[in-house]
Amino acid sequence: MSGTVYGVGLGPGAQDLLSVRADRLVRGGRHVAYFRKAGRPGQARRIAEGMLRDDAIELAMEYPVTTEIPLTDPRYNDCLAAFYADCTGRLLAIAEAGADVVVLCEGDPFFYGSFMHLHSRLSGLVPVEVVPGIMGMSGAWNATGLPITWGDDVLTVAMATLPEEELVRRIRDTDALVVMKIGRHLAKLRRAVAAAGRSDEAWLVEHAAMPEQRVTRLADVDRVTPYFSILLIHGQGRRP
Amino acid sequence: MSGTVYGVGLGPGAQDLLSVRADRLVRGGRHVAYFRKAGRPGQARRIAEGMLRDDAIELAMEYPVTTEIPLTDPRYNDCLAAFYADCTGRLLAIAEAGADVVVLCEGDPFFYGSFMHLHSRLSGLVPVEVVPGIMGMSGAWNATGLPITWGDDVLTVAMATLPEEELVRRIRDTDALVVMKIGRHLAKLRRAVAAAGRSDEAWLVEHAAMPEQRVTRLADVDRVTPYFSILLIHGQGRRP
Ligand SMILES: C[S@@+](CC[C@H](N)C(=O)[O-])C[C@H]1O[C@@H](n2cnc3c(N)ncnc32)[C@H](O)[C@@H]1O
Ligand SMILES: C[S@@+](CC[C@H](N)C(=O)[O-])C[C@H]1O[C@@H](n2cnc3c(N)ncnc32)[C@H](O)[C@@H]1O
Repeated sequence: MSGTVYGVGLGPGAQDLLSVRADRLVRGGRHVAYFRKAGRPGQARRIAEGMLRDDAIELAMEYPVTTEIPLTDPRYNDCLAAFYADCTGRLLAIAEAGADVVVLCEGDPFFYGSFMHLHSRLSGLVPVEVVPGIMGMSGAWNATGLPITWGDDVLTVAMATLPEEELVRRIRDTDALVVMKIGRHLAKLRRAVAAAGRSDEAWLVEHAAMPEQRVTRLADVDRVTPYFSILLIHGQGRRP
Repeated sequence: MSGTVYGVGLGPGAQDLLSVRADRLVRGGRHVAYFRKAGRPGQARRIAEGMLRDDAIELAMEYPVTTEIPLTDPRYNDCLAAFYADCTGRLLAIAEAGADVVVLCEGDPFFYGSFMHLHSRLSGLVPVEVVPGIMGMSGAWNATGLPITWGDDVLTVAMATLPEEELVRRIRDTDALVVMKIGRHLAKLRRAVAAAGRSDEAWLVEHAAMPEQRVTRLADVDRVTPYFSILLIHGQGRRP
């Protein structure tokens, strides 16, 4: 009997925003895996700090590249493909030996998550279960204290990694907006928001639902943003 | 000292998908309010079935209209505005008497939620706190067993209440798609998906994360869909 690989969504950051199902799996897990950048604690692991069993066996899956090689370089793809194959092998070995593994995921695992790359490789080989989670963007609009969408507002979710003109077009053509994966694309994103004429409506939320949470109007952002930030424009749709 | 009004996101349906914070508030609440259509149990109340205290005092807020009057009729707005004012008064009375009230909300309260109409009216009068929740759409893509977005996919969330041409344009111009509030707009939505050339990619998820959950390819849907359903097109973005 092989064990199950659980991709567990932890939500945006606060421990009491884990679902009851996720909370049980994380606290009960003997094998606990997570992605991280080499030399960093990893956001998912940080969220679960203090929740793991004393005898939990941790498996840190360290990205070989993140921003060093450009996305367009074929070596980027090869390198990541080899990495995911290796991670898959490690999880498979645990599950085939009969033990369950809990993979910690930020937010919701099936929403731009790294676990998806393991899920597609593991499916059909061992049982895989995904536990949905509160998305980072929910934590972000909640931090602003304002609803993101009303009535029949259209919400567009885009990554800051898109080309500048594409960002401008998307920002112009939506009621509500969420932009993720900002990091070193902040200057480009700012120009795009300005070109779309929406700078006054935009907010930047860093580390939503975490102790370092910071909510700033985009116009007032004066320094480089961490990887863990989200840009929001709230919809202003129909409301009686 | 006035009490607090809590807008509590319950997630898509399963009770163990409530957050730990929401679970505590729902189980501990003396005053518990929720919206529903007259004569119906109400989706949020159904999700919380069996969780409330024995001595909980329930406040059902029954919509005066939903689909009887067209959205464009000014009476629709007047009628809803009066209803929200009345609900606000009832919650305010409880909070001003010093008691907390838990308002049960499907999914995430700040994402197309009815509670937003009370939140904006109560803010500044009594303390109001919102607890984010797993959105219905997370439950829906999780039910299909496939990730919704990869790499730099654009996700568009639109309501089926939009005009047909607008739906066609949005469905053409996105990688991943979520359509909510389908109900009697299903025939129009189907035509729009077909006109955008994406019928083969579309899924309909009814009652995600609930006992009656049903996942169907849009092409195979052969009967009227309940209000509680979501249309999805999964993104196919970059993946090593
Ligand atoms: C690889 S994606 C993972 C998204 C995640 N699966 C989710 O459901 O939110 C990483 C991006 O998520 C965003 N993010 C997730 N959680 C966040 C939080 N608590 N605060 C700010 N940004 C967050 C950031 O934009 C970050 O660049
Ligand atoms: C007024 S909106 C509320 C959305 C909610 N606040 C959320 O975060 O999902 C109601 C719409 O949500 C969608 N919905 C919410 N939960 C759902 C579920 N569990 N299954 C299917 N559809 C759901 C349906 O499309 C429905 O028409």
